[in-house]
Amino acid sequence: MKIRDMIITPIAFSDPPLLNSWGVHEPLALRCVVEIVLQDGTVGLGECQGGSLRTDQLRAVREAVIGQDVFATSAIEERIHAVLGDQTVAGGGAVGMPRMAVRGVFAPIEVACLDAQGKLLGVRVCDLLGGPVRDAVPYSAYLFYKWAEHPALDGREPIGDTWGAALDPGGLVAQTRALIDRYGFTSIKLKAGVFPPEQEIAAIKALAAAFPGLPLRIDPNGGWSVPTAIRVGRELETELEYLEDPVLGREQMAAVAREVSMPLATNMCVVAFEDIPDAVARGSVGVVLSDHHVWGGLRHSLELAAICRTFDLGVSMHSNSHLGISLAAMTHLGAATPNLSYACDTHYPWNLTEEIVRPGALRFVDGSVPVPDGPGLGVELDRDALARQHEVLLRSGRTVRDDTSYMRRVEPGYDPTLPRF
Amino acid sequence: MKIRDMIITPIAFSDPPLLNSWGVHEPLALRCVVEIVLQDGTVGLGECQGGSLRTDQLRAVREAVIGQDVFATSAIEERIHAVLGDQTVAGGGAVGMPRMAVRGVFAPIEVACLDAQGKLLGVRVCDLLGGPVRDAVPYSAYLFYKWAEHPALDGREPIGDTWGAALDPGGLVAQTRALIDRYGFTSIKLKAGVFPPEQEIAAIKALAAAFPGLPLRIDPNGGWSVPTAIRVGRELETELEYLEDPVLGREQMAAVAREVSMPLATNMCVVAFEDIPDAVARGSVGVVLSDHHVWGGLRHSLELAAICRTFDLGVSMHSNSHLGISLAAMTHLGAATPNLSYACDTHYPWNLTEEIVRPGALRFVDGSVPVPDGPGLGVELDRDALARQHEVLLRSGRTVRDDTSYMRRVEPGYDPTLPRF
Repeated sequence: MKIRDMIITPIAFSDPPLLNSWGVHEPLALRCVVEIVLQDGTVGLGECQGGSLRTDQLRAVREAVIGQDVFATSAIEERIHAVLGDQTVAGGGAVGMPRMAVRGVFAPIEVACLDAQGKLLGVRVCDLLGGPVRDAVPYSAYLFYKWAEHPALDGREPIGDTWGAALDPGGLVAQTRALIDRYGFTSIKLKAGVFPPEQEIAAIKALAAAFPGLPLRIDPNGGWSVPTAIRVGRELETELEYLEDPVLGREQMAAVAREVSMPLATNMCVVAFEDIPDAVARGSVGVVLSDHHVWGGLRHSLELAAICRTFDLGVSMHSNSHLGISLAAMTHLGAATPNLSYACDTHYPWNLTEEIVRPGALRFVDGSVPVPDGPGLGVELDRDALARQHEVLLRSGRTVRDDTSYMRRVEPGYDPTLPRF
Repeated sequence: MKIRDMIITPIAFSDPPLLNSWGVHEPLALRCVVEIVLQDGTVGLGECQGGSLRTDQLRAVREAVIGQDVFATSAIEERIHAVLGDQTVAGGGAVGMPRMAVRGVFAPIEVACLDAQGKLLGVRVCDLLGGPVRDAVPYSAYLFYKWAEHPALDGREPIGDTWGAALDPGGLVAQTRALIDRYGFTSIKLKAGVFPPEQEIAAIKALAAAFPGLPLRIDPNGGWSVPTAIRVGRELETELEYLEDPVLGREQMAAVAREVSMPLATNMCVVAFEDIPDAVARGSVGVVLSDHHVWGGLRHSLELAAICRTFDLGVSMHSNSHLGISLAAMTHLGAATPNLSYACDTHYPWNLTEEIVRPGALRFVDGSVPVPDGPGLGVELDRDALARQHEVLLRSGRTVRDDTSYMRRVEPGYDPTLPRF
């Protein structure tokens, strides 16, 4: 069945002021929805990061996708690579995108093709990937330091939310309790690198005391020096399930890995197949956080999982701010990944007020998302909501995510240089 | 759709007296056909090595497969592992099959499930694997030193064939010409390790002279010492595309790899995911010959291909004596493997007089097999032929493949110890 059209709709949705090592989430998160339309009218859905760069890349490959067989996703990836990656200049120098970047453009297209395949055939996406090995995929409570509200700027009122502030251990414990009460999470991850390590160590210890038995992780996004990371790792030896990206780069990660007892996890120093040989040779990481948006879709993410199994590395899943199409795709992938070693990350609870898929298909039960029943991804697009959020994007004039510049409007001297501590 | 039955049919078919480094092929090759029957009567086909050990293993897991969802192949693999691999004795010692051996039992079941899925959904197996990146899969002319006939033994007459003897360079050149005339092969592989290296070097040089421009490979199956392998590799520097398993083991392979210019290929020292980390660390090989029968089916073989892509290793395909179900599976896999770097091996031309699939679906065009059009694997079982070949097996009383013992009935002093040269 051939692909008749590919519709690209950039959108924006409300995001709370979540703090990280580069700044703070802006009031709107950018996202892009890809619809693959087959000759018979079947529509498959994909979702990826927003911003004009990604949207332009998707538009650039649209003609290369239209007319292809929806089952021929590997060939479609090659065509996308030919458009974006194989451009050379006289003399043979390459000016195109590297293969790893091409995979990010391919990812939402692959997911949309798999969704369309499933809808066409009447089977779930996970059934096209070797079938589920679990009925529901566990996610972790993803804690953020956060302000109570987006500050008043550009003549707009402050934008509050139901979560309130979390700027100290007590605030994080309260946030965790709210997340667990609503979603039933049974493991906890703290986005860190925001405050001096002593404060974040105290937060983890407070969480360990408040939620005994629940696995804990901390992720300063490369915010620490090697000595700081080793010190924190040793101080939290009994509390942490894994330590995520304490430092930048595979060499520094290896230096930390040799000195701490828990595995190091990453979604920063191993983000493409091309990074793996060096990481394996150095022993940089013990857990790779896959992300189908980055690694090139669901099948490539399963390849990553196979590589991790082969090299005795754990597998979990990274997340950016996302909506229901991505949550469905992550859940089908997680269900079909035999060696999913840890509960996955998801920002989904932070964005539940606005959705582009119809309610009912996605829900959390005891911290896990059951695999949707319906064919394909099992979610249906709410076209009114999509149109609304496209309008929100257009009205905002936003084209990039820039947590640092937003932070500087509040703290003019903010310096995002890493490591900070 | 649930699996209603799994039918296991061991068979035997005529095989010419092909020589290798362990002896000579017996007059009958053993094979096993697996049929996965769904609730609606849809039947999926798989084929694997024969012999009573494999047949018994398949029978042992049959009950664990029946009742499962045909799409849930990863879960079926886990159930097979639970039956064969997870058995422990008091005290915790494992007595079960290692994971890599379990994959060999799973392989024909996975292929049969994929065939059944495709037939159920009306799509080809390659469409369930990311789609084809090529319409036809190239195979190589697989040359063997061979006797003119199976000798008279046990009161039976000699068994001749249309190929005749090939025991010197001239015989191999004639054999190649016959293979190319019939099938159009555009690359050539010689099964070696049979005669002293000088004779086999002369054979390769004769083939290079007779078929200029056609890539050549030689595979002595670990029959050489490290110094012999280095010497042969250097003498055939300009002739060989790759040198396959010149020596035994990853350490010796690495020692040869450092001293010769062409890549080393293997289907002996890297036969499971568990072998890969050591092979990568040592630099033992440049090409892995996958084999879905060994690696655990088509999806695991694609994982292997992804690992090879990641670690900059070439990919090709190994073969044992097989029939059309396997050729169809190999072809769907080869079509769906983006980084298939070399023409695949196949014994298929040696066995064309007896088949268990109906004619028409499989053919060679210019040395390649076009992907069959039909749903699933695209081949149909010839039940009369299957019954006949099952009878042939029963009458033969054969339970194992034993090239060495057969050779000793002709050459009583034959010593299979490797390396021989």
